[in-house]
Amino acid sequence: MAITFDIQLPHYNRGFHLITDQIKRQLPSLPEHGLVVVFIKHTSAALTLNENADPDVRHDFNSFFNHLVPDGTSYFIHTFEGEDDMSAHIKASLLGASVTIPIKDHKLNLGTWQGIYLCEFHNGGDRRKLSITIL
Amino acid sequence: MAITFDIQLPHYNRGFHLITDQIKRQLPSLPEHGLVVVFIKHTSAALTLNENADPDVRHDFNSFFNHLVPDGTSYFIHTFEGEDDMSAHIKASLLGASVTIPIKDHKLNLGTWQGIYLCEFHNGGDRRKLSITIL
Amino acid sequence: MAITFDIQLPHYNRGFHLITDQIKRQLPSLPEHGLVVVFIKHTSAALTLNENADPDVRHDFNSFFNHLVPDGTSYFIHTFEGEDDMSAHIKASLLGASVTIPIKDHKLNLGTWQGIYLCEFHNGGDRRKLSITIL
Repeated sequence: MAITFDIQLPHYNRGFHLITDQIKRQLPSLPEHGLVVVFIKHTSAALTLNENADPDVRHDFNSFFNHLVPDGTSYFIHTFEGEDDMSAHIKASLLGASVTIPIKDHKLNLGTWQGIYLCEFHNGGDRRKLSITIL
Repeated sequence: MAITFDIQLPHYNRGFHLITDQIKRQLPSLPEHGLVVVFIKHTSAALTLNENADPDVRHDFNSFFNHLVPDGTSYFIHTFEGEDDMSAHIKASLLGASVTIPIKDHKLNLGTWQGIYLCEFHNGGDRRKLSITIL
Repeated sequence: MAITFDIQLPHYNRGFHLITDQIKRQLPSLPEHGLVVVFIKHTSAALTLNENADPDVRHDFNSFFNHLVPDGTSYFIHTFEGEDDMSAHIKASLLGASVTIPIKDHKLNLGTWQGIYLCEFHNGGDRRKLSITIL
């Protein structure tokens, strides 16, 4: 009854990006009630739910997290993968690797203003792999 | 087998509030094993699990998050909804929109000291909508 | 169909510890598709997913969180349980009490570099209880 499948996102630059529509397009018919779990298979990017209307919100998220966990923080000792690597790991755990969204009446039961953000913390920005489970 | 339903909380002031009993009162009979997911349909409030005994803990949570993400931070550009809005969005994602609680022996399998917090970050404080899924 | 069971970890010192193998050893056969939720029944420790290779990453996590939420922060009023207690509560909520991991082809569908961290924030370090649900 449960189904899990993987998808791969296109490239995104460092920053916060609204991916709700991309996720929705990949979903099969949903059960009447249940859960969708979207999970990112990486440790230098994250997923979160937040405001889906004004791009300035995503801009401010990026500024805030860059201030909170500066690249190349002086006391970091995991430095050989670059200045954006250890900061990316910490940001990823602060926001988390998955979002869990209720299904109601065969639809994602999101609030009016909620969207799914891809939070990309590496300058390079690989094409990220997500795993989606429907229960 | 899964069930999802929405509820609406009463008004809460800005701050951290213990809502475990309110949630429990709204639950139907639980299966022997499974999960309860409590999800908040907003982007300026959050849910988390923490200490359920001393109200000073919730007071200190509020102080800490107000220091960590100050209202009206100088570099924010999403400012037209008020000084408490962008800070609320960031706090909401730091704590998350849902808590996932195991069910064991037909009961929430929380630790002795764990309770569910509503984290209200807006001064205004709407009546918040939650979605509850039982699996 | 769902199964929930509790386990108890050995003692860990304050810090971040990789426990993926310990968790895996305790899992029964997994369904083809579904979810594993690992939940910690405490409010001064947390679980997160992050880099599973270099111990320096866990070291830097510990340094960062000790800077972000200093023990004995001057404005805390919940102080009677010791200087590491209120800081532990806040760190626990920043990282969260559970990790949700997809199951695909009867296996945990983690990315190559993802492992499960126990985040221990108390100096004392009890033996922590986890609850595991498979759906």
